[in-house]
Amino acid sequence: MTLDVGVIGVGMIGQEHIRRLDGGTGGSRVVAVADADTDRAAAVAGGLPTAKALPSGEDLIAWDAVDAVVVTSWGPTHEPYVLAAVAAGKPVFCEKPLAITQEACGRIVDAEVAAGRRLVQVGFNRRYDPAHRALKQALDGGAIGAPLLVHCAHRNASSPPHYTRDMSIADTAIHEIDELRWLLGQEIAAVQVLTPRRSSRGGKLQDPLLVLFEMADGVLVDVEVSVNIHYGYEIRCEISGETGTVELADPAPVTIRRDGAAAGLVPADWRERFALSYDIELREWADTAAAGRQPLGPGAWDGFIAQVVSDAALQSLHAGGRVAIALPDRPDLYAGPAGP
Amino acid sequence: MTLDVGVIGVGMIGQEHIRRLDGGTGGSRVVAVADADTDRAAAVAGGLPTAKALPSGEDLIAWDAVDAVVVTSWGPTHEPYVLAAVAAGKPVFCEKPLAITQEACGRIVDAEVAAGRRLVQVGFNRRYDPAHRALKQALDGGAIGAPLLVHCAHRNASSPPHYTRDMSIADTAIHEIDELRWLLGQEIAAVQVLTPRRSSRGGKLQDPLLVLFEMADGVLVDVEVSVNIHYGYEIRCEISGETGTVELADPAPVTIRRDGAAAGLVPADWRERFALSYDIELREWADTAAAGRQPLGPGAWDGFIAQVVSDAALQSLHAGGRVAIALPDRPDLYAGPAGP
Amino acid sequence: MTLDVGVIGVGMIGQEHIRRLDGGTGGSRVVAVADADTDRAAAVAGGLPTAKALPSGEDLIAWDAVDAVVVTSWGPTHEPYVLAAVAAGKPVFCEKPLAITQEACGRIVDAEVAAGRRLVQVGFNRRYDPAHRALKQALDGGAIGAPLLVHCAHRNASSPPHYTRDMSIADTAIHEIDELRWLLGQEIAAVQVLTPRRSSRGGKLQDPLLVLFEMADGVLVDVEVSVNIHYGYEIRCEISGETGTVELADPAPVTIRRDGAAAGLVPADWRERFALSYDIELREWADTAAAGRQPLGPGAWDGFIAQVVSDAALQSLHAGGRVAIALPDRPDLYAGPAGP
Amino acid sequence: MTLDVGVIGVGMIGQEHIRRLDGGTGGSRVVAVADADTDRAAAVAGGLPTAKALPSGEDLIAWDAVDAVVVTSWGPTHEPYVLAAVAAGKPVFCEKPLAITQEACGRIVDAEVAAGRRLVQVGFNRRYDPAHRALKQALDGGAIGAPLLVHCAHRNASSPPHYTRDMSIADTAIHEIDELRWLLGQEIAAVQVLTPRRSSRGGKLQDPLLVLFEMADGVLVDVEVSVNIHYGYEIRCEISGETGTVELADPAPVTIRRDGAAAGLVPADWRERFALSYDIELREWADTAAAGRQPLGPGAWDGFIAQVVSDAALQSLHAGGRVAIALPDRPDLYAGPAGP
Repeated sequence: MTLDVGVIGVGMIGQEHIRRLDGGTGGSRVVAVADADTDRAAAVAGGLPTAKALPSGEDLIAWDAVDAVVVTSWGPTHEPYVLAAVAAGKPVFCEKPLAITQEACGRIVDAEVAAGRRLVQVGFNRRYDPAHRALKQALDGGAIGAPLLVHCAHRNASSPPHYTRDMSIADTAIHEIDELRWLLGQEIAAVQVLTPRRSSRGGKLQDPLLVLFEMADGVLVDVEVSVNIHYGYEIRCEISGETGTVELADPAPVTIRRDGAAAGLVPADWRERFALSYDIELREWADTAAAGRQPLGPGAWDGFIAQVVSDAALQSLHAGGRVAIALPDRPDLYAGPAGP
Repeated sequence: MTLDVGVIGVGMIGQEHIRRLDGGTGGSRVVAVADADTDRAAAVAGGLPTAKALPSGEDLIAWDAVDAVVVTSWGPTHEPYVLAAVAAGKPVFCEKPLAITQEACGRIVDAEVAAGRRLVQVGFNRRYDPAHRALKQALDGGAIGAPLLVHCAHRNASSPPHYTRDMSIADTAIHEIDELRWLLGQEIAAVQVLTPRRSSRGGKLQDPLLVLFEMADGVLVDVEVSVNIHYGYEIRCEISGETGTVELADPAPVTIRRDGAAAGLVPADWRERFALSYDIELREWADTAAAGRQPLGPGAWDGFIAQVVSDAALQSLHAGGRVAIALPDRPDLYAGPAGP
Repeated sequence: MTLDVGVIGVGMIGQEHIRRLDGGTGGSRVVAVADADTDRAAAVAGGLPTAKALPSGEDLIAWDAVDAVVVTSWGPTHEPYVLAAVAAGKPVFCEKPLAITQEACGRIVDAEVAAGRRLVQVGFNRRYDPAHRALKQALDGGAIGAPLLVHCAHRNASSPPHYTRDMSIADTAIHEIDELRWLLGQEIAAVQVLTPRRSSRGGKLQDPLLVLFEMADGVLVDVEVSVNIHYGYEIRCEISGETGTVELADPAPVTIRRDGAAAGLVPADWRERFALSYDIELREWADTAAAGRQPLGPGAWDGFIAQVVSDAALQSLHAGGRVAIALPDRPDLYAGPAGP
Repeated sequence: MTLDVGVIGVGMIGQEHIRRLDGGTGGSRVVAVADADTDRAAAVAGGLPTAKALPSGEDLIAWDAVDAVVVTSWGPTHEPYVLAAVAAGKPVFCEKPLAITQEACGRIVDAEVAAGRRLVQVGFNRRYDPAHRALKQALDGGAIGAPLLVHCAHRNASSPPHYTRDMSIADTAIHEIDELRWLLGQEIAAVQVLTPRRSSRGGKLQDPLLVLFEMADGVLVDVEVSVNIHYGYEIRCEISGETGTVELADPAPVTIRRDGAAAGLVPADWRERFALSYDIELREWADTAAAGRQPLGPGAWDGFIAQVVSDAALQSLHAGGRVAIALPDRPDLYAGPAGP
């Protein structure tokens, strides 16, 4: 019953996922890796008990020994790998974004619809974070009445040199795009991106941004996106409802009193903050794939919608103003429960 | 050295201020009250050791025994009372708003400028709240670097029957208008009011609102204004800067564990939340007035600017869109330290 | 109606109290000071608008112009000054301890009983701290059922060179002795002092201590007394009851996120932590004295009991073991409400 | 590489552990169960894909198909099952207590020593709780200097009808006994149990207790043990060191504002509070057993020591007073790293 997984792209997040899928004594194991950097693929394979390095992602997908595929390569390569996995009838877990244009995402949706079954899961890990689940549980349980306003902050300590203004939307705020749809059970109807005073820490980068989302039912969301805030990595969210609010609590497990302050330590980055969510996400994905069932997590349709909204946000960022979003009809294939 | 105070308008907040100015053994005492409801004025005066009820606010201001005036009457009456006090050369503490139009506020400014000295203090009590002062102290002390974004929430448990959509700006968000100028040391350059999904708890009232302020230096502020949020009264504020953030902490003095929850009690209303700030504010005002000095707190110019911004926000609320704000030059009279 | 106060002992806390009693425009003012260091007395008097320096505390008490007396001199001098004030029929506020032996405290009680009225208030300021009042309010309001256990911590950043092991009880834990009686409405029936591992930061001082108090109704209290804990000044207290607990919350007014931590600043010392409680305490005392009423706060009897318990704790500290406490009958003079 | 596990005792915690060991697609699976209630064993086996019910624990241990054993049966049966597993050379995970007397625990230690390898792990799950690990990490990392005092609370909402005073020590506080040894890296040198005012919620049960532990290096620990505190399940711990303190933070993932309070939900019981620690504990145990390595977690020696300390605490509870603890020499088999 062990799931034999092939991993395409063995950079940082690829290696993190390999550790999750190959740690332990079974459930899943990694049998193949591929990377544009074939030396790196060979090195990673060499450190694993059962994996071999294959020359290309296409070879990996085609190999009979691979039951399921994880795509953690560079964003522009996602589309062909995911399409190939779908064509091969193999479950595929693709890190976000599903693909780098909405057209590419649409082709993946079309392929799945043509295949008649859901094979794709997208790595929107927030849905697996226990704190975000508690947020949703409180909301869905009626603790605060109907939601009216949401305030979010997505903060990174620093951005790498190649980071661009557009990536604040397409690579960073895209997590909030999926999260809001999942949390509120509503599509996003419009978006506007505002550019506040620029931080001197990000060089010429326009950072931070303030992104406003209007949900289909009128709930209004503002998201601070800061990618050079220095103090650490933090995700904040408060939902204001008709009778109260619910908010992510400080995740620090201990309070340390020293040097004139009572403090909780802030995670350094997303790996530290969301480690448990990735564990749960990949465990569920592997279990579901091994059982021959469709993935429970966010799928190709969610990846497509996120891209549509991200594109609209980029349009607002570039041209200014509010951009309304018109979504195509959802294929019946995606009519089931959103999961997880 | 006791300051003999006359109070015009003895409704709820008037009586609260009387208790502050007449409690204790000296410093200040209330020697006269007036109210449109003369029976109420007589009843309140009857409960005070040294106060008599006068037929009108004008009589009160004119009475020689009155050293200084507190105006806590209905908003539309503020202008004539404040002008009369200025004309009489008496210090006057006026609850917000200073007057209900920017033109009226401007006439008060003109009168003070003509008189050549500051006599007016406006009741923007946030500047006296220890938590807000700690916020400003952290910011000014460089704890978070230059400010870039601010998120505020102004929440009331419920609104009275006569409450209107415009009052969410002119009576409620006006506190944030003054607070932001004071906190950030910048004027407000533009404002936009957005209307999210409407709470079913406020009847036909458009509640909540989301108000966006652009400060002159580009800092962007979003303010949730909720006036029927049921769970209690709460003021929240987080400033995001270049290297960190500073945020109002939960003000509950104790944590109670019972019935499945670890909880801090939320104040029922502004009187409970801001009691200490009013104590400090009125103590400082009375001490300053008794010493014959100009008021240290927000003055006529601050009341005027707040009204200009409030009017711009109302314009956005009514007509939609972003409204840029052009401020007149500040008279030299107001060039000194903003205080307190 | 202004209360004219004389202050004996103008060291740090004396000057703090002078600022409270002489600030503002009335209510009370300081008309005389005295100090063993007459130069210091003269210097302090010189900085006050209405005060003169008198050669001795006895002269100050005897002076007709002095309505009421504040004793903030060195502990061993408290007894004669308080007795003189009682003999003169003048209200006297005495910083803790009331006197340095239970016998001395008993003589003050006897003098008051003989005089037939309460003139003495002791500076147990915890009773005036809003957070401690909220603790008591929650307990008395039934929020946690009957109390069963209490855990306290009394922490100072560092102790001065002359500080001794006994002072951890007689000068430091004495605050908890009074607080527990007030908070729980019970006398202390037994005490035991335990000596944990010694901090290397206090030189040869035995620090910290763990003090166990048994209340008359069986409630058990443990108090950590740490006087060199470096990180700051903090008072903690949690009461465990039959259905829940109530605990002092972190008093920091703001949360600062920077350098990898989300932190509340800890007060440096008791002056910062308890400033507001002293304000309230002295304001109430002055108002009550000015009105010719008996003090509402802790009195000579409370000072005496605290000393009896402190002596029992010292006996345990020196000889080891549990020390039972037998209290004399309370004179009728002290039968009224404990206040404040 | 899958570990085939047999589980003896399929009550509540047995079934929880089965879910952990048999969930997912591999790593470990449950192949056999046994229970004194053979019908229950059959029912549980019937719900598992690969498990059969065996007539007795002895049969289960003896069965070749069983690679490793989990003992979650009634405490008095632990000794024979663990001894049989050791005799069979099979890794065995035994829920706490290892056995119900120190003599029985000693026989298990002797058997392991005779066998020359560690096969036993005891279910002290606190060592796997991320928050407790963060506590230890802060302490070991020097964040607060050398530890001096520790304050703990172990609170259960209610106790079952058969619960006795002794169980507050032997079944409840035993977790703190192991935790303190692990956290502080010191043995417990003496113990004293104090009996505060009794809660009316526990019938005739003496509840709560206050347990004082003296560590070998003088660190003093007080532990509140409350088993009927109604409001929920909570574990608290603060370590006071030479320069600061570290404390378990509130574990609630979200803050809910409603009905006049800002609250974090408190877990209902230990299953909810410690679910993640059990996941990690059993995952590590199964992985280690599957790899043929000695267990990394607390072993037979830790189970034995905990029982010695528990017996001393019971002696104090029954007879009063402080009970010093003399430990036998540790066999070389247990000289390695304590892990995990």
